[in-house]
Amino acid sequence: SRTLRLAVIPGDGIGQEVVAEGLKVLSAALPSDVKLETTEYDLGARLYHRTGETLPDSTLEELKGHDAILLGAIGDPSVPSGVLERGLLLKLRFAFDHHINLRPGKLFPGVTSPLGGDPQIDFVVVREGTEGPYVGNGGTLRAGTEHEVATEVSLNTAFGIERVVRDAYRRAAARPRKKLTLVHKNNVLVHAGHLWSRIFQQVGQEFPEVTTDYLHVDAATIFFVTQPERFDVIVTDNLFGDILTDLAAAVTGGIGLAASGNINPSGAFPSMFEPVHGSAPDIAGQGKADPTATVLSVAMLLEHLGYTAEAATVEAAVAADLAARTGTRSTSEVGDALAARVSG
Amino acid sequence: SRTLRLAVIPGDGIGQEVVAEGLKVLSAALPSDVKLETTEYDLGARLYHRTGETLPDSTLEELKGHDAILLGAIGDPSVPSGVLERGLLLKLRFAFDHHINLRPGKLFPGVTSPLGGDPQIDFVVVREGTEGPYVGNGGTLRAGTEHEVATEVSLNTAFGIERVVRDAYRRAAARPRKKLTLVHKNNVLVHAGHLWSRIFQQVGQEFPEVTTDYLHVDAATIFFVTQPERFDVIVTDNLFGDILTDLAAAVTGGIGLAASGNINPSGAFPSMFEPVHGSAPDIAGQGKADPTATVLSVAMLLEHLGYTAEAATVEAAVAADLAARTGTRSTSEVGDALAARVSG
Ligand SMILES: CC(C)[C@H](C(=O)O)[C@@H](O)C(=O)O
Ligand SMILES: CC(C)[C@H](C(=O)O)[C@@H](O)C(=O)O
Repeated sequence: SRTLRLAVIPGDGIGQEVVAEGLKVLSAALPSDVKLETTEYDLGARLYHRTGETLPDSTLEELKGHDAILLGAIGDPSVPSGVLERGLLLKLRFAFDHHINLRPGKLFPGVTSPLGGDPQIDFVVVREGTEGPYVGNGGTLRAGTEHEVATEVSLNTAFGIERVVRDAYRRAAARPRKKLTLVHKNNVLVHAGHLWSRIFQQVGQEFPEVTTDYLHVDAATIFFVTQPERFDVIVTDNLFGDILTDLAAAVTGGIGLAASGNINPSGAFPSMFEPVHGSAPDIAGQGKADPTATVLSVAMLLEHLGYTAEAATVEAAVAADLAARTGTRSTSEVGDALAARVSG
Repeated sequence: SRTLRLAVIPGDGIGQEVVAEGLKVLSAALPSDVKLETTEYDLGARLYHRTGETLPDSTLEELKGHDAILLGAIGDPSVPSGVLERGLLLKLRFAFDHHINLRPGKLFPGVTSPLGGDPQIDFVVVREGTEGPYVGNGGTLRAGTEHEVATEVSLNTAFGIERVVRDAYRRAAARPRKKLTLVHKNNVLVHAGHLWSRIFQQVGQEFPEVTTDYLHVDAATIFFVTQPERFDVIVTDNLFGDILTDLAAAVTGGIGLAASGNINPSGAFPSMFEPVHGSAPDIAGQGKADPTATVLSVAMLLEHLGYTAEAATVEAAVAADLAARTGTRSTSEVGDALAARVSG
């Protein structure tokens, strides 16, 4: 019998609630010969207030011993902006070299898009996860004075871009439409932009079957709203990917449905799966949060670990649930319904 | 009798066509005792191919002798990405210290928003125009090799942020809703983000009547789609402003209607007004371009030069024209109709 060693970081706010439902569905989905072994890590605002730490070295070590990580949400207004984001979320992405930040943008049947009509939206954003303006390479001079200067450096390497671009081509090649769009701002950020464009073209020679195009990030936001059907696979840098995937969530029915995977394809470190939404302290503890994004992240986790059929079952359960939705249900009612569909 | 010395840069593609209509409307709108003196500068792809130059020093000097600049659009696929953008458009913004990049997001009655329904959208984005990731402070190491590294530095100064933030507060204070939203990504870009936040709070003390809030740029894109009514005045950095204003154009009926002003409030150098759209080479020369964005940019130009009543007349003409639209008209038919409304 096999074992799935899962590290669970519920985090703050609604993180706790949605992760509980994600685990319910995961248990229901796993083959009966797989033993699910979860270890919960209490990271986030509480740990920070208690100890001043965001991610103790010992925890980072322990996390390495797991097959994957499921994370709820991190963040609380009581913690200064950036502390948990940089000290925990981004630290995990960087420490475990999660260079593929995978974010599907799919409008499920039955879900209303704010765009109206019935657009056929089914794309996936492959966001670079370990470079760009996220490297934490900024500085401040003359802090607090009227002469303060603050910098942020975007770092981009051929190595880092090539691996994410190749991953995106592979994904595009495996999809029916076989289309890949590079999004950047190479007319202004010319150094980074030209490196992205060069490697995009170069790697493309290995994938003659994939159709490609390029959009500036500003133009891409327009098409997300006016013509989201045009996208199949999108590859982009860390910051543009952050912005575009929230927008993608908005046009596909909301952040309550948007899943993500922080993936290290080499398997050298555990990959991490999390809903795109935040901790939503305003509705925490009230059973109001929609756990669907977490459940879809669980499907991505299953897929990543090779449980392809089980991942499809979870996604089908979500699709069926969304198509049948009427009235308001609590967080755990949605989780129960999804687990039931998966088991049934 | 007064004189308005206007420098005109029609530029590439549809730039020529839309600027012609903008000038038609400007002539119709100006008080009869104002003499309009235009000098046309042939900058853009043609000049570049002929001479290799994007903005000759002598032209830059001459431009300084004008009260304002009207620009159509710059860019052609025959010119490598970035050359005209950095060498002409951005060079003008930087040389003339256009630190207020003003971009209204208004849904006119009669215009269909892709969001459906009849949202009340009426905000203005005050985008910083001379700092951030636009400073051109990037570099490339080991170009063309598999070890290439490319950087882009975002530069942010207390001086630069304070002047745009104060401008935004003033605009917010002068509007009925008196609301100002700061958009940044201060949980990741902590150095630049904290400087923006500090100055935003500090300057806010001079404007107790203005309600403020803060959004991360990713969350802001969601609200642009799900709740655009919530915005009144937005202040943000150069790159986030670029992205958000294209998205704003998309939700308010398209880039064909989006105007912008590159403003130097001190008057030390001429301010520049231009539609947000590009040169659209695919439809150039066919009389298909909508000149409305240029005409609305002319209204901003009039407002900037103190012709407040005339600016209002032009905007009212556009509003009336949009409300009455049926069928397809050519570029010059739209311009004629607007000029007629302004004169009538
Ligand atoms: C919380 C923040 C650090 C994070 C990011 O910017 O990547 C979030 O917005 C996301 O998209 O996962
Ligand atoms: C063409 C480009 C340099 C420019 C920008 O990025 O500012 C354009 O997108 C704009 O918004 O005016």
